[in-house]
Amino acid sequence: MNNFQLYNPVRLAFGKGQISNMGKMLPKGARILITYGGGSIKRNGVYDAVVEQLKGFEYFEFGGIEPNPHFETLMKAVELIKKEKLDFILAVGGGSVIDGSKFVALAAHFEGDDPWDILSKSAPIKSAMPLGAVLTLAATGSEMNGNFVVTKAETREKLARGSELVYPVFSILDPEYTYTLPKRQVANGIIDSYVHTMEQYLTYKNGADLQDSLAEGILRSLIAEGPKAMQADEPAYENREKLMWAATLALNGLLSCGTIGDWATHMIGHELTALHGLDHAVTLAIVMPGVLEFTMKKRKEKLLQYATTVWNITDGDNESRWKQAIQKTEEFFNALGVKTRLGDYGIMEDTIDEILKRFRSRGFEFIGGAGDIRTEDVEEILKSRL
Amino acid sequence: MNNFQLYNPVRLAFGKGQISNMGKMLPKGARILITYGGGSIKRNGVYDAVVEQLKGFEYFEFGGIEPNPHFETLMKAVELIKKEKLDFILAVGGGSVIDGSKFVALAAHFEGDDPWDILSKSAPIKSAMPLGAVLTLAATGSEMNGNFVVTKAETREKLARGSELVYPVFSILDPEYTYTLPKRQVANGIIDSYVHTMEQYLTYKNGADLQDSLAEGILRSLIAEGPKAMQADEPAYENREKLMWAATLALNGLLSCGTIGDWATHMIGHELTALHGLDHAVTLAIVMPGVLEFTMKKRKEKLLQYATTVWNITDGDNESRWKQAIQKTEEFFNALGVKTRLGDYGIMEDTIDEILKRFRSRGFEFIGGAGDIRTEDVEEILKSRL
Repeated sequence: MNNFQLYNPVRLAFGKGQISNMGKMLPKGARILITYGGGSIKRNGVYDAVVEQLKGFEYFEFGGIEPNPHFETLMKAVELIKKEKLDFILAVGGGSVIDGSKFVALAAHFEGDDPWDILSKSAPIKSAMPLGAVLTLAATGSEMNGNFVVTKAETREKLARGSELVYPVFSILDPEYTYTLPKRQVANGIIDSYVHTMEQYLTYKNGADLQDSLAEGILRSLIAEGPKAMQADEPAYENREKLMWAATLALNGLLSCGTIGDWATHMIGHELTALHGLDHAVTLAIVMPGVLEFTMKKRKEKLLQYATTVWNITDGDNESRWKQAIQKTEEFFNALGVKTRLGDYGIMEDTIDEILKRFRSRGFEFIGGAGDIRTEDVEEILKSRL
Repeated sequence: MNNFQLYNPVRLAFGKGQISNMGKMLPKGARILITYGGGSIKRNGVYDAVVEQLKGFEYFEFGGIEPNPHFETLMKAVELIKKEKLDFILAVGGGSVIDGSKFVALAAHFEGDDPWDILSKSAPIKSAMPLGAVLTLAATGSEMNGNFVVTKAETREKLARGSELVYPVFSILDPEYTYTLPKRQVANGIIDSYVHTMEQYLTYKNGADLQDSLAEGILRSLIAEGPKAMQADEPAYENREKLMWAATLALNGLLSCGTIGDWATHMIGHELTALHGLDHAVTLAIVMPGVLEFTMKKRKEKLLQYATTVWNITDGDNESRWKQAIQKTEEFFNALGVKTRLGDYGIMEDTIDEILKRFRSRGFEFIGGAGDIRTEDVEEILKSRL
């Protein structure tokens, strides 16, 4: 393995009813900003359960954080925090709300002129407001990591950063809080978890056998539970529990310990969202089969391991097994109701040109961390997905 | 799964040369007590590498912490800490040194009369000195958890406790630091890691599929790497790396999330060490096959999963597969050079009586957490191991 540091101080409270432990995890006397998205938490009871825990605390609200949270929106939360002298953020939602809240936590303490520099220029950050999370959507893993992705609406840029400063102090993971999600969001969450795992797993072997075992377990679990979640008339606890736990473990730092990570699918996918507003997970489902096919002959050892241990493919020669595994991956996304071709979304070659232009303008030689996809290769990858 | 909390703030720095990152992880101006065991670190270069990082810090030393660290010894370290007003412990060693240092960290802040009450009476603890660890033996997982086991020599009691207060602030895990270990200690470490995993894994299924995947990966890794370590003329980095990482993941809190844990083998084993001074791992290797056999028909589902996924046993009816798996487990311990019968160590029936008496005097109805071993069953288990 490569040398690594593992550090993750998030206190995770997992299971039904865990909200009842939240009160004692909040700093005494905290002045809280509750952040949330479109307001579904006010209809499904989650909001009520949260504020029930806030007796004795002063709190304000900031709703309306959109999917792929906008810098412009988030800066309004920063204003409110400064005006009301708030000192704790309680993010109630999925990855967008938590990601956005992490950015707000940093922006509120930022000493430079323009907080967008945190993302666009990796501007120095020294501290952040503490935040806690109540998860309502199993997908991004943001509840147990320091990563965040924010979009600037003005310039259609979607950029990511990570910092230890914005690990949630705690995260409440109650699978029942996902019961009222639209099926489309459930499907997106499953794909997101799946691709997070693949980005860290499907590159090259380097002795990280235990990370591999866990990754393969996560992938198998998503393959088994994903379609069940889509087909069920009523959400089942065990099913939602498994999806939630898989999503968190997929991106809490353990899978990447000592391994060679990729993230090419994400980098390309982010551009599709920035340019066309596609759901994050949809972009991953479109791009990943292309990335796997393009790197197939280089990543052959790991791809064969994936075919065997995750998909139980044992027939045919090696190349046929790689291809079967890639095909099954795409079919899995399709079975969740997600179409996986650019054409399905009316996206054409001009977008490919625009994405290449963007990557070149940022001076990237390689896309992703595995060193096997050059910037110009993105053209071949995306053309294969038209 | 059962509801659970996962919280582990240890900063792990893993890989060769990681000691060079230690200086910046120490609190500024810390007055440090270096704790260690028999002094091998002064002969193999680890001590020199550690003090090289302590330039600018004031530090004192406390050596001589024995395997199964003694309360009586540890209290001398507490004295030194109080006399010299030290405020940070740097534990350099294996599980005994780290466990002992955790107790010292608590005892130095203990407000009651007798610090032994921390273990014997679960006396309230409010704070602890911060500590860091430099690991020299892959075995107990103490480097990434809050557990500690201490023995009172006077009364031959060996007791365990865990607390969030004594998570190491950091742990340096350099596989090369295990190169000079005697083979016996390497074998003990492998068995320790193996049985830690089994105690959390081999009970009853309850939806913790991802923990199972990781546990099975750890077990397979130990089975593959253990014998290699024993047979090698010269230690190999990849081999020692895998053993070290397996030991840490075996007991850092993840495997037990939401699962039904046992620890019966440990409870019984601790008594054998307390009464006869046997190596901890040796007691586990003796007791575990007896526990597996005794619980076989109840834990059949998980035992079959273990037989299949860990030992690749696919022949015979279910009962034959359970038995093959148990036999292979014992043979694995034997292959590491460890004998697995009480008689091999001259231990006879009178010890069984004494252990039963001890458990009864503590008022235990069940041994272990799975609820399938009553105190009186320990007789049958241990008789099967004579």
